[in-house]
Amino acid sequence: MFAEAQSDPSLSEDEFEAQEPRLRTALLKAQYRQLERADRSLLIVVAGIDGAGKGAAINLLNEWMDPRHIQTLAFGAPTFDEQERPPFWRYWNELPAKGRIGIVFGSWYAPLLLEASRKKPRPRRMTAYAEAIDRFEAGLAAEGVQIIKLWYHLSAQAQADRTKMLLSSPETAWQVKPADRKVHKKYDRIYRAGQHVIERLNPAHAPWTIIPSADERIRAVRTAQAVLHALQQRSPTPKAQVFSAPALAGRRSPDRLGQLDYHTKIDKDDYESALGLLQGQLARAVRSDAFKKRALILVFEGQDAAGKGGAIRRVTRALDLRQVDIHPISAPTPDELMHPYLWRFWRHMPRHGRIAIFDRSWYGRVLVERVEGFASSAEWRRAYAEINDFERQQTDHGAIVLKFWLAITPEEQLQRFQERERSPFKNFKITPDDWRNREKWNQYASAANDMLARTDTDHAPWHVIGTNDKRYARIHVLKNIVAVLEQTL
Amino acid sequence: MFAEAQSDPSLSEDEFEAQEPRLRTALLKAQYRQLERADRSLLIVVAGIDGAGKGAAINLLNEWMDPRHIQTLAFGAPTFDEQERPPFWRYWNELPAKGRIGIVFGSWYAPLLLEASRKKPRPRRMTAYAEAIDRFEAGLAAEGVQIIKLWYHLSAQAQADRTKMLLSSPETAWQVKPADRKVHKKYDRIYRAGQHVIERLNPAHAPWTIIPSADERIRAVRTAQAVLHALQQRSPTPKAQVFSAPALAGRRSPDRLGQLDYHTKIDKDDYESALGLLQGQLARAVRSDAFKKRALILVFEGQDAAGKGGAIRRVTRALDLRQVDIHPISAPTPDELMHPYLWRFWRHMPRHGRIAIFDRSWYGRVLVERVEGFASSAEWRRAYAEINDFERQQTDHGAIVLKFWLAITPEEQLQRFQERERSPFKNFKITPDDWRNREKWNQYASAANDMLARTDTDHAPWHVIGTNDKRYARIHVLKNIVAVLEQTL
Repeated sequence: MFAEAQSDPSLSEDEFEAQEPRLRTALLKAQYRQLERADRSLLIVVAGIDGAGKGAAINLLNEWMDPRHIQTLAFGAPTFDEQERPPFWRYWNELPAKGRIGIVFGSWYAPLLLEASRKKPRPRRMTAYAEAIDRFEAGLAAEGVQIIKLWYHLSAQAQADRTKMLLSSPETAWQVKPADRKVHKKYDRIYRAGQHVIERLNPAHAPWTIIPSADERIRAVRTAQAVLHALQQRSPTPKAQVFSAPALAGRRSPDRLGQLDYHTKIDKDDYESALGLLQGQLARAVRSDAFKKRALILVFEGQDAAGKGGAIRRVTRALDLRQVDIHPISAPTPDELMHPYLWRFWRHMPRHGRIAIFDRSWYGRVLVERVEGFASSAEWRRAYAEINDFERQQTDHGAIVLKFWLAITPEEQLQRFQERERSPFKNFKITPDDWRNREKWNQYASAANDMLARTDTDHAPWHVIGTNDKRYARIHVLKNIVAVLEQTL
Repeated sequence: MFAEAQSDPSLSEDEFEAQEPRLRTALLKAQYRQLERADRSLLIVVAGIDGAGKGAAINLLNEWMDPRHIQTLAFGAPTFDEQERPPFWRYWNELPAKGRIGIVFGSWYAPLLLEASRKKPRPRRMTAYAEAIDRFEAGLAAEGVQIIKLWYHLSAQAQADRTKMLLSSPETAWQVKPADRKVHKKYDRIYRAGQHVIERLNPAHAPWTIIPSADERIRAVRTAQAVLHALQQRSPTPKAQVFSAPALAGRRSPDRLGQLDYHTKIDKDDYESALGLLQGQLARAVRSDAFKKRALILVFEGQDAAGKGGAIRRVTRALDLRQVDIHPISAPTPDELMHPYLWRFWRHMPRHGRIAIFDRSWYGRVLVERVEGFASSAEWRRAYAEINDFERQQTDHGAIVLKFWLAITPEEQLQRFQERERSPFKNFKITPDDWRNREKWNQYASAANDMLARTDTDHAPWHVIGTNDKRYARIHVLKNIVAVLEQTL
């Protein structure tokens, strides 16, 4: 793949001028068509040999296309804020909306390339980086983010010649940064790293193109051609096996909701005392020094009127309001619909020392969106694995993820609905949707059982609680949180 | 004002229960009406004596209203990210959209209250904090953000009794944080600080209400009443004199655009050499250690086709892409229209060590929005002072703000428009709007002259450059940036 670029090909001025107007016009046309359709975004990953002119190529794309619809996403060393979230957080955060183009510089390849260019790359790290990239790119591609990756390449001789030429005049010498003066010593290692990465991570849905870069005219033309090609064709869908959630023994998921005990009760006095003591334990745990290096993510799901709000309030009363964010999740906004499904949840991931509480969550994909048909079959089937990976990235970075399914019986729900309708200040909580969902009780229960079977992981376990007795439910939730915190911290 | 709260009044259970349903129903109704109208947002600032139950009051509001449309904005010590921006950046960032409610805890009053409760408050700091708050609140109020401020108060005796009561049982002792055990020693100072702040900063458009808090029932009722009152009435507009920009000597602004030299030229060879040398100086300046504690904000305005894009590209070519963000500014999005005008620009303010380039900017308010009638007369007249204050906050925090007005003659513009229309890959840059704006040449020129007269400040000066010769314009822009950087760093 590198043979052509190693030979440092070039274009004459005449050849270049014969191609430029046609390319620019075609690029603009393709860009506007993508913008109008707004059915996908395009990420252009820029990497390569130092001194190959990556910055100039990015400037060129901004000049040849309409820069108002392009975001240049250039990442350096992670900021403090970024360090307190999983490594991919910053890339998720900056994803362009459908219709738009993102040019990524200092991408998710940077840590892998750094490792691969060490004298002795550590194989386990290499594998871990590569697997994470694989999942990230496949997940984006499946969600309508087209990805192309450009490797800017020139020979060692051309690199040395270019540095020498730039240094020969004060008008250009500044382009060679102090660190760049030594890059030729590392040329072989970076080349080797590029070869490894391109061989290992070159799926059809996120392919590499090598751009010969010793000559700026051929670099410009090849860059434009690669982007034009991407804009003109639909990229292949990633293979479904990338997204594999735990396999199930039988055809049907175990009926965890059916087997639940809904009738355990707790008496009022015991409740008040236990509540205060547990809230105290929780308050102390999250004020501890050990928690400053962790984060806590609490997910609350369950049938309508199962008591999510009440349970959440009993938790937050133990917490300093400055330490916690509560996210009520409802239908996505137009802006959220223009991004991959998990985008809006990634944005809410807490920094270290903080707590994020989700009143409904990313599980909507495999619950309401599945049952109501808002997500396609491929989308919700894929989501189990995507969600497990998403949660795994949080826990790998120090977060504690706990998920609660609050379950009531249909009879209890009916009683609570009727009670809400009678109260002048509670009837806002009950909508025609709630009654409609209730008619699909079995479909929702079956979706919940499937979800529990596929996403009850060691790193982010589900706690399924029968909540016909609200007091029992609240105590049980707090007990679980406290137990996990005390065991982890 | 504090007399009633100092006497620790209370409500009986019967009195409370007689009021609760009516209050909750009215609050919900008022909240939904505000949501539906979406013509303003409401900020509820929560402050007061320690142990007065501010957290409980916030929980109550979330329980009595629909929490999906309320944001609890609780601020602690500034994060690293926040420290690298002006103090008000984090409050701007979190402003709720029109229709919604924000409850602010750890608000912009925190630094002033801290200062005011010192043994010997430093008068100059007190004044500076108070003036900044004055401008901030008036600016928000003028832009459709209603503000009310609640001071939770109890007597020293009630505070001591409450702490003692909580500490008497392990079920409640955790509510008293280690730091809280000593608050009674500071009671007098915090009380005095509250008196000072409420007396000094109590305008009709952002009034304080004192909430008696020794009894939780009266605290709940008074909190709900204060919020209900705010939701039911329109708050007064701030007085116009809060927004005063530099007065002008005559009735008309000086004709700076008319007096400009449009015909200075630079020859091609001189240009290439000067460009390279200046880009080198710029590159070195922003790589310097001294720049790590500053930020650079560059604003480009000017007539259509005056060469903003070309000038910006000559600047960015000298910069590391990881250090710079380019913001092309066009019409506000629906989401931006739901927030105060400056909100979308605050979000783009660069952290230390970074550069933000605005291709058009917040000056749209006094240019296109004024001329086309998108902003009311009151809005654009007020904007001069708002903008000067906004820029001043950036420079006070270490940013360097430089503004360029690129000016061409009408004849030169016509030629450039025609040239763009002829090019297959440049005609996207020319729209019917451009031709329409051209017909209003004099109105735009007059708006620009007014703007230059009112916002050409020492802390954020305008550089007005005749750009009939593009090369001259680019060199001039770079020269100005380099000169200011070298002088400042």
